[in-house]
Amino acid sequence: MERFPLKRSSMSIPLHSPITYQSVNKDKYENGGGADLGGADDDMIDINTNGGGDRTMPRSHEDEHLSYSVSFSGLHETNDIPGIGQYEDFHTIDWQRDIARDRMRHRYIVKKKQDSLWNLIEGAHDAWSGWLCVLIVGVLTGCVAGVIDIGASWMTDLKFGICPQAFWLNQEQCCWSTNETTFDVLNCSQWLTWSEVLGQAREGVGPYIISYLFYIVWALLFAALSASLVRMFAPYACGSGIPEIKTILSGFIIRGYLGKWTLIIKSVGLILSVSAGLSLGKEGPMVHIACAIGNILSYLFPKYGRNEAKKREILSAAAAAGVSVAFGAPIGGVLFSLEEVSYYFPLKTLWRSFFCALIAAFVLRSINPFGNEHSVLFYVEYNKPWIFFELVPFIGLGIIGGVIATIFIKANIYWCRYRKYSKLGQYPVTEVLVVTVITAVLAYPNPYTRMNTSQLIYLLFSQCGISNSDSLCDYNRNFTDVNSAIEIAAAGPGVYKAMWLLMLALIFKLIMTVFTFGMKVPCGLFIPSLCLGAIVGRIVGIFMEQLAYNYPKNPIFSGECSTGDDCITPGLYAMVGAAAVLGGITRMTVSLVVIMFELTGGVRYIVPLMAAAMASKWVGDALGRQGIYDAHIAINGYPFLDSKDEFAHTSLAADVMQPKRNGTLSVITQDSMTLDDVEQLLKETEHNGYPVVVSKESQYLVGFVLRRDLSLAIANEKRMVDGICGQSLILFTTTNPVQTLGPPPLKLKKILDMAPITITDQTPMETVVDMFRKLGLRQTLVTHNGRLLGVITKKDVLRHIKKMDNEDPNSVLFN
Amino acid sequence: MERFPLKRSSMSIPLHSPITYQSVNKDKYENGGGADLGGADDDMIDINTNGGGDRTMPRSHEDEHLSYSVSFSGLHETNDIPGIGQYEDFHTIDWQRDIARDRMRHRYIVKKKQDSLWNLIEGAHDAWSGWLCVLIVGVLTGCVAGVIDIGASWMTDLKFGICPQAFWLNQEQCCWSTNETTFDVLNCSQWLTWSEVLGQAREGVGPYIISYLFYIVWALLFAALSASLVRMFAPYACGSGIPEIKTILSGFIIRGYLGKWTLIIKSVGLILSVSAGLSLGKEGPMVHIACAIGNILSYLFPKYGRNEAKKREILSAAAAAGVSVAFGAPIGGVLFSLEEVSYYFPLKTLWRSFFCALIAAFVLRSINPFGNEHSVLFYVEYNKPWIFFELVPFIGLGIIGGVIATIFIKANIYWCRYRKYSKLGQYPVTEVLVVTVITAVLAYPNPYTRMNTSQLIYLLFSQCGISNSDSLCDYNRNFTDVNSAIEIAAAGPGVYKAMWLLMLALIFKLIMTVFTFGMKVPCGLFIPSLCLGAIVGRIVGIFMEQLAYNYPKNPIFSGECSTGDDCITPGLYAMVGAAAVLGGITRMTVSLVVIMFELTGGVRYIVPLMAAAMASKWVGDALGRQGIYDAHIAINGYPFLDSKDEFAHTSLAADVMQPKRNGTLSVITQDSMTLDDVEQLLKETEHNGYPVVVSKESQYLVGFVLRRDLSLAIANEKRMVDGICGQSLILFTTTNPVQTLGPPPLKLKKILDMAPITITDQTPMETVVDMFRKLGLRQTLVTHNGRLLGVITKKDVLRHIKKMDNEDPNSVLFN
Repeated sequence: MERFPLKRSSMSIPLHSPITYQSVNKDKYENGGGADLGGADDDMIDINTNGGGDRTMPRSHEDEHLSYSVSFSGLHETNDIPGIGQYEDFHTIDWQRDIARDRMRHRYIVKKKQDSLWNLIEGAHDAWSGWLCVLIVGVLTGCVAGVIDIGASWMTDLKFGICPQAFWLNQEQCCWSTNETTFDVLNCSQWLTWSEVLGQAREGVGPYIISYLFYIVWALLFAALSASLVRMFAPYACGSGIPEIKTILSGFIIRGYLGKWTLIIKSVGLILSVSAGLSLGKEGPMVHIACAIGNILSYLFPKYGRNEAKKREILSAAAAAGVSVAFGAPIGGVLFSLEEVSYYFPLKTLWRSFFCALIAAFVLRSINPFGNEHSVLFYVEYNKPWIFFELVPFIGLGIIGGVIATIFIKANIYWCRYRKYSKLGQYPVTEVLVVTVITAVLAYPNPYTRMNTSQLIYLLFSQCGISNSDSLCDYNRNFTDVNSAIEIAAAGPGVYKAMWLLMLALIFKLIMTVFTFGMKVPCGLFIPSLCLGAIVGRIVGIFMEQLAYNYPKNPIFSGECSTGDDCITPGLYAMVGAAAVLGGITRMTVSLVVIMFELTGGVRYIVPLMAAAMASKWVGDALGRQGIYDAHIAINGYPFLDSKDEFAHTSLAADVMQPKRNGTLSVITQDSMTLDDVEQLLKETEHNGYPVVVSKESQYLVGFVLRRDLSLAIANEKRMVDGICGQSLILFTTTNPVQTLGPPPLKLKKILDMAPITITDQTPMETVVDMFRKLGLRQTLVTHNGRLLGVITKKDVLRHIKKMDNEDPNSVLFN
Repeated sequence: MERFPLKRSSMSIPLHSPITYQSVNKDKYENGGGADLGGADDDMIDINTNGGGDRTMPRSHEDEHLSYSVSFSGLHETNDIPGIGQYEDFHTIDWQRDIARDRMRHRYIVKKKQDSLWNLIEGAHDAWSGWLCVLIVGVLTGCVAGVIDIGASWMTDLKFGICPQAFWLNQEQCCWSTNETTFDVLNCSQWLTWSEVLGQAREGVGPYIISYLFYIVWALLFAALSASLVRMFAPYACGSGIPEIKTILSGFIIRGYLGKWTLIIKSVGLILSVSAGLSLGKEGPMVHIACAIGNILSYLFPKYGRNEAKKREILSAAAAAGVSVAFGAPIGGVLFSLEEVSYYFPLKTLWRSFFCALIAAFVLRSINPFGNEHSVLFYVEYNKPWIFFELVPFIGLGIIGGVIATIFIKANIYWCRYRKYSKLGQYPVTEVLVVTVITAVLAYPNPYTRMNTSQLIYLLFSQCGISNSDSLCDYNRNFTDVNSAIEIAAAGPGVYKAMWLLMLALIFKLIMTVFTFGMKVPCGLFIPSLCLGAIVGRIVGIFMEQLAYNYPKNPIFSGECSTGDDCITPGLYAMVGAAAVLGGITRMTVSLVVIMFELTGGVRYIVPLMAAAMASKWVGDALGRQGIYDAHIAINGYPFLDSKDEFAHTSLAADVMQPKRNGTLSVITQDSMTLDDVEQLLKETEHNGYPVVVSKESQYLVGFVLRRDLSLAIANEKRMVDGICGQSLILFTTTNPVQTLGPPPLKLKKILDMAPITITDQTPMETVVDMFRKLGLRQTLVTHNGRLLGVITKKDVLRHIKKMDNEDPNSVLFN
């Protein structure tokens, strides 16, 4: 391999006399003004190190390619050493390395494609496996979502009564089979409430108490089952899962978090906890469920299953599918995945997410669990466009939403922290049962909290028309014709009563959700927050409507209200309010607006929704820095490097790197350490990787080797090669040492990462943080004038950020 | 500053005897298994270089901060040297450097905020200036778009006739003032065609010829004016501008491309060229106009105007606003900016783009240039949902769309290349006139090509209802009631005639657009491609409709058609076809679907649109790799590193870097070169920057200095410091040289980038390309074991990619 095995003895130069040196090389450096790369003109670069012996490296083009292919096929071979390329639990992945591995694999397949028909098919399969995988993920997500929707709907109704002819039908389906032609399809004679089952009448105090008791008992039963299942089989199945999904997608390993048990228990537990009537939604956990499906299916395709970075492409798409089925909002799902959960989101993933979300929404629509024609969850249609002045109350709703969201986040985080560090955390099932009893007891008397939260949102969003008999629509007006415009009217007593009940419901839901979100059952936050906002919005809307009724000629209504038509739609205010609170809690903006209009079909209301979402986000950001998910990530100490935060401090890489000035950096030399030395090092230190240098004295960087790879490779070599003993040299070079005496060396160049990312010690930390985020680094090596000074890991960066923000740096738990 | 001014004379160590050295440092290196950073434990790091003299660098924490603040305030001071931090025309920007500069500026303001009230206001202004800037950009974009819409609409109608009472009204507005109560608002007596103005009748051969001639003359006049304006005042105002915007956003400087003259001429020229009836749209150029507005306004805010990287945040938002006003699609605009044009798109920019697009759409809606109630351009409402089987023709439309798009792109690129390299390119005005005459002569006889392209699209999208009198709706059916469902019916002779005319229109438009797009007038591609697709779609739709009419009981229609209702909506096919062709030409996916449904209000048709868009994109990608914009970027040789392409070759950084093995690398030493040496180097080489090394012999990297900064700084020092002569040393170190004899040195540390991005020579090119894309690099330095080997610039990367793809690497023109 070495075409010019010329070895030059390096000159020893007194460092204080540069002139001496220049005179030695005078002919080369002094004539001609152009700068000159030392030694490059004779096809050789003298790797002139201070004390580590000299090496010459051939620089001819062919040799390079040879060594390149060797090193790559070498890396390919390392797949033979079992476990190489995998990660430990609760560790950060190295995106660059995984993506490089995938490219190698890809090239290998492309190269083999010409060989035989089978390889050609294999190549085609490989090329399409990404699309195929997201297709299956989409289909399965749609199916699981359908099952959950049907199950939750049936069990929610089971709390109130049963369909004796066919117990597997929910109230709505039960009433479909009846022939009664009444408007009130939900009060048919086929459906028996529990008091009727027991032979009581439908109305009256006795039956009310019986129904009340049945409601509480069923709720307790469901909640107990849900909490026990989670506790016994899958502790990871609790919560919404979105903070963890965000962390996992940012490149972190939590084994089992997306496993099959979590999937099963989360799905079942979700049905149960939703049915228990707790103040939670099933939309957030749907993202977790979809990601679990994505994770499990990715193992069918080794391209994704065996490569953590590639797997995250599938998971991003699955997250989009999760939101897509949760709200029937495929585009909102893609944007949610992009804006909120994903970290590494190349355009290819955008398209796959889009496809996956589409398939999932389509499958769910085909299953049609709700049995209605519109594929959108809260389909609304308003007669009137909004008028310019209404932007003021809309922005006002945004501000209120931001305030409510901040109160919620602060209270919830306080409670979760209390739960985590107090005795309460040891009794998760008891906690769930207590909260369930309180929820059930308080919720039943108020019709707005008794009903399903989704139904309540739908009611609040909807326009008061001829078919709407709720007391919320008790206006003093007569409907003459279905087609004519609805006249504006004074609110009747029903409306005022409803407003009081809604205010109570608001307070009740706000408090209960604070205690519920974070309990050890599957629980999402979207529906409760939408509901909070919808209540506030509806109240503001009714207020505005009555204002317009009383002062129709006021110029602020631009004459729209003087015709006597209903110019203000309280339902629109509910929609805007819902967006404001959800936006304040999650800090979504674009995805939120898209979800809202996919949810309601209201394309014309983008401006009000956007105005409220922006106002809410600004207020939220001003009052408390983090959204709920980021706050939960911080509580759990996950190593999440938020791509939204700006790093605003004046530090240099030198301030953050390890070791600090009194520490020592653990390094491995490229060809002078024995097996004993290395094993000693592995025993005494706990770093996840070690830089490989030319020699300990010179500290010129050669590469980087991971602890895990090193242990595995040593074990493998010990098994495969005879004669390995403690005195065997560990070699990271390709050249054999001259002396062949002594025990055989361990040649580990194949596990050496020859292209570690390096920075100089003067690099500002903003740039370093940017590199960690954008390149998905796990660590970077810090050099000064070519010499290795230290290492910065993701954990170091996170701790430094916490320290700068005057938070506890030790709250970053994992690496 | 130096707390420990201890200077150790470095030992000179014979390199072949590591043992000697180890024995010297035995106590330090042999006890304890942990590796040790040489010298780190005595608070000092000995920057032990081979020949460049020794330096000791204090490593105490305080000192570091001090030197840090010095170096940064130093960099701040460099703003005094005029022109530093700016770029030459046709050069690539360095994102990291610009962003670092902005952070410094930001910190400076934050620090000063406590000083006085004025500084506090300044700080608040700075914090809000981004939002303020995009607000003004949004408002102005909306206004300009309104003016263009009104102007184009008036001048388009001017080709046909005039409103004598008020010549500034277009036909529609003219007819509003009439009291006639006819359905056909576009044929009122207030509006006079040119033949009527000349005293002729409205119908007949003579008047037809007069109108024909007037049409051609007006078209020629408009086109000539447009082309001459562009040629004389703003050559950059031609074309759609999107390829250039993409390149500029990826970090390239084209001075004047977004200047005020371009803005004015492009706006006026756009009105003229649209009115000339050429086969072009005004939507693409609207993006260019919006970006020009963004660029001009960014100069009001030095934060953005004086920082090219930050300016691009405003430009991204402006691009979103451009699409937003072009289609009335704010969310589509944001996604277009994200998916298609932007390069660096942090979430903050997403929110700002969203805000900007919203404001622009809102302002345009308030101006209401079209005078209709719906804010959406082609608002459609279909009675029937689509049925499952229809996915087959939808995907078929996607495939046809992909094929048409590929034909269009290949033909257009061929023609543009021909224009570029032949004599044709020298006569742009003549070319425009010839194309205009051909277009006008051929377009007038066919009613579908005579009408405004937007009107044609709207007609093709719309459902045949009672109010639609076009021959396209000539079905054998009677409308009994407005509210009852439309029955399915056999097509009448009018439909068949319309189909023939549409086919002719398709061929005509396809051919004319190939010749038109790329001419030296402002011309967009969205509307022509939507139109091509809508024609194909409508034809397929009518075919499907008649199939359903003839075979209503066929199971593929799932029984939907057996009731006699119109189960197939040809307008929906037109919409899907339009999306397919536009998707094939531009390769948009998510943004396309969002634009389509914002354009039409058809939220329920996401699945068909998505299916067609994906099919079209796949077919397009299979037949030809590039979308139209990327192809135009390649023709023009812009240095655009596409973030969509995957780099699939096995090369290492060492293969790509300059110099190749026989070349020499131009470097500057940190403290041993004189002014003459450096000026000689600047004269003899043309690099945009030079690495600074410890010494020419050791090649250990210290930093990087830009050619431009170096020239400016030398000129500045010459002006400011007395006694500078050719023998003055150029120092990039902070320590003064010991001997103070001789001429004063030039201290240039303040212009030295101490944190250049470096990679090792073994880094795979995929990683390098990734770093260039994600970090927005201009160049990276290649090292091996700490020594500098070479430089890779963006141009080198692009040339290498071209070479690997067997294309001409010299087609990359700029750096």
